[in-house]
Amino acid sequence: MRDAIQAIDGGVAAPRGFTAAGIHTGVRKVRKDLAMIVSSVPASVAGVFTTNKAQAAPVLVDKTQLKRSATSSAIVVNSGNANACTGERGLNDAWAMVRATAEALGLPEEQVLVSSTGVIGQYLPMEKILPGIALLAAELSPNGSSDAAEAIMTTDTYAKEMAVSFELGGEEVRVGVVAKGSGMIAPNMATMLAFVTTDVAIAPALLQKALVAGNEVSFNRISVDGDTSTNDMVLLMANGLAGNRMIVHEGEEYQLFASVVKELLVDMAKKVARDGEGATKLIEVAVRGAATEEDACAIARSVSNSNLVKTAIHGEDANWGRIIAAIGYAGVEVAPENIEISLNELPVLLRNYQIVLDEEKAKEVLAQATIVITIDLNQGDRSATFWTCDLTKEYVHINASYRS
Amino acid sequence: MRDAIQAIDGGVAAPRGFTAAGIHTGVRKVRKDLAMIVSSVPASVAGVFTTNKAQAAPVLVDKTQLKRSATSSAIVVNSGNANACTGERGLNDAWAMVRATAEALGLPEEQVLVSSTGVIGQYLPMEKILPGIALLAAELSPNGSSDAAEAIMTTDTYAKEMAVSFELGGEEVRVGVVAKGSGMIAPNMATMLAFVTTDVAIAPALLQKALVAGNEVSFNRISVDGDTSTNDMVLLMANGLAGNRMIVHEGEEYQLFASVVKELLVDMAKKVARDGEGATKLIEVAVRGAATEEDACAIARSVSNSNLVKTAIHGEDANWGRIIAAIGYAGVEVAPENIEISLNELPVLLRNYQIVLDEEKAKEVLAQATIVITIDLNQGDRSATFWTCDLTKEYVHINASYRS
Repeated sequence: MRDAIQAIDGGVAAPRGFTAAGIHTGVRKVRKDLAMIVSSVPASVAGVFTTNKAQAAPVLVDKTQLKRSATSSAIVVNSGNANACTGERGLNDAWAMVRATAEALGLPEEQVLVSSTGVIGQYLPMEKILPGIALLAAELSPNGSSDAAEAIMTTDTYAKEMAVSFELGGEEVRVGVVAKGSGMIAPNMATMLAFVTTDVAIAPALLQKALVAGNEVSFNRISVDGDTSTNDMVLLMANGLAGNRMIVHEGEEYQLFASVVKELLVDMAKKVARDGEGATKLIEVAVRGAATEEDACAIARSVSNSNLVKTAIHGEDANWGRIIAAIGYAGVEVAPENIEISLNELPVLLRNYQIVLDEEKAKEVLAQATIVITIDLNQGDRSATFWTCDLTKEYVHINASYRS
Repeated sequence: MRDAIQAIDGGVAAPRGFTAAGIHTGVRKVRKDLAMIVSSVPASVAGVFTTNKAQAAPVLVDKTQLKRSATSSAIVVNSGNANACTGERGLNDAWAMVRATAEALGLPEEQVLVSSTGVIGQYLPMEKILPGIALLAAELSPNGSSDAAEAIMTTDTYAKEMAVSFELGGEEVRVGVVAKGSGMIAPNMATMLAFVTTDVAIAPALLQKALVAGNEVSFNRISVDGDTSTNDMVLLMANGLAGNRMIVHEGEEYQLFASVVKELLVDMAKKVARDGEGATKLIEVAVRGAATEEDACAIARSVSNSNLVKTAIHGEDANWGRIIAAIGYAGVEVAPENIEISLNELPVLLRNYQIVLDEEKAKEVLAQATIVITIDLNQGDRSATFWTCDLTKEYVHINASYRS
């Protein structure tokens, strides 16, 4: 079945019935800052949201919307301003974005979702956004995904989109995605937004299940700086226009759909980690041989969040002692003397602290753009993989001056 | 009573019967790298150690030593190499340091404690350290504290020592301390070493109690980078030579002694935070109005560890949204709309997201070398204070090239 999954163009507008657009309205100085993704028919929708206690206005609005209606037809997203920590006024602004979008598209209000990303604690410039929404609606197109992907970026250095097609229940079906990073990225969840579209017909409960499962091993396993944002969300819309017989139980077709969603999300998560603020390298932390998956996750998370590991990788320094230290403070019972570590398959440390590090070879390996840190705890058969990036002077530069 | 506490010279060698020394032996390229602190008579000793599961050889050796003997007479410390993750050979090396020190000083082996700080995962250059120990013993002097403070530094930019005298039970007593930071600093505990000496006569159980209490609100509340080290320790030696009647219960004299120890440790902890790798500012995170002290600590820790808060303060940017975000992901039930934030007493945010930030005044305030972030949760009367430092390009520079 795997061979039948083909990358196609069109991003979130690749699935039948979806259009998208992205324009510049002036929330940001120069770059595109307002995006829309629309389904021509009401789509089942699944969502996962930030675990931060300070939830941004659009997160609160969308949770209400998902209770009001089982389907959605449009998502409107601005970058440059998170509409977070903005109180009543922020909530009113988010609702105003919903209403303006509904009006521009001739939709009932409950068919519209809203999302924001950018600076926290400033009010949205509604005088720019509201007229922008009307303009944006006129730009919707099957070729608009790239513009939408661009318009949701903040400090991302490149737009992130993808689409695939595959056969499901005798029909050719499609899934598309756009996503953005790239600071305030931490597990549960990253500061990130991702919007997934599909023309698959699937029962809402299974749609949510596929999203949660995919999200758990992708966006919940990346970290740029350990800061969990107020605005994170992943939304998945399924409009059923592919004409497949609706997926209503967890059989083979569900498994195939869920695995495609998972692969797309993992791919996007890795792109987000690689494009972390100031990053020059993608770091994959693969923990093996753990007693439980929870242990494997805790250790992978601890290593992914270690500033000292991230700066060492940036300096192309095989400083495995920092990896051991981060394993040691992960709050998991480990026998440090059983740990084995390799960097891009170059063994560095074997059991009983046997240091087999070849500094010359390590230099070569660490010069690569992707560094896989494999940690074998040798105390079980569970595993987990996280992704992060190196920590650079550019990260400090970006974040010491983000608001100005 | 407070007025009677006077700062005096002499550091750890200020209390009666203590001497110290620090020399260069070649573990580090240029700077002093081997220190000794010695009491002329066996001293009661209290200790707290890292919670990291990967404990360095000297940590394991000292835990054994403290079980073998209730008293100690000497501490030998090297910088430049942590003797961590070095297995059997590392343990043998740490014991060899103990034996060489015992021999040089004519002490029983169980009277000697050992400590190391520096790079993880490399074997100690014993051919430099062992002859160094003999030389060091000959240098011991009542004026040797500054040399010892210098010899335990790694990336610290200045030596940290202090001593005070005060009256206790009719006698003038003294407490001295040396400490080092300055990367891999995180609560429970920091990558730090601190050695405290006193000539007070006090029962061992109360000595340990005073150390644990002081450590809890000092070194356990600082963070440079969230990385908890393999080597942390704080040792407190009390040799009783002040001649006070031994403190044997928790009365007024114990309280006075414990409060002096606490103040010295808090002072050292703030020095360690201010001197964090690459730091230009000390950041104090004071959480008030929490329902429990545990909540206050969790929030103060989360804000202290936030790379985004630390880079914003570095950029002198009053980006309070990042502070709210870090509060929100601390894992504590909070009502974000009740939170009030001030920076060096300049109110920035009042209840209900009332933004009262005056950007001009904030610029002035944030130009200062110490930034106090006061967070009032307005949901109780518990509080906690943590200390950290700003995150700078220099931190990345230091840590991308630490081993080379």
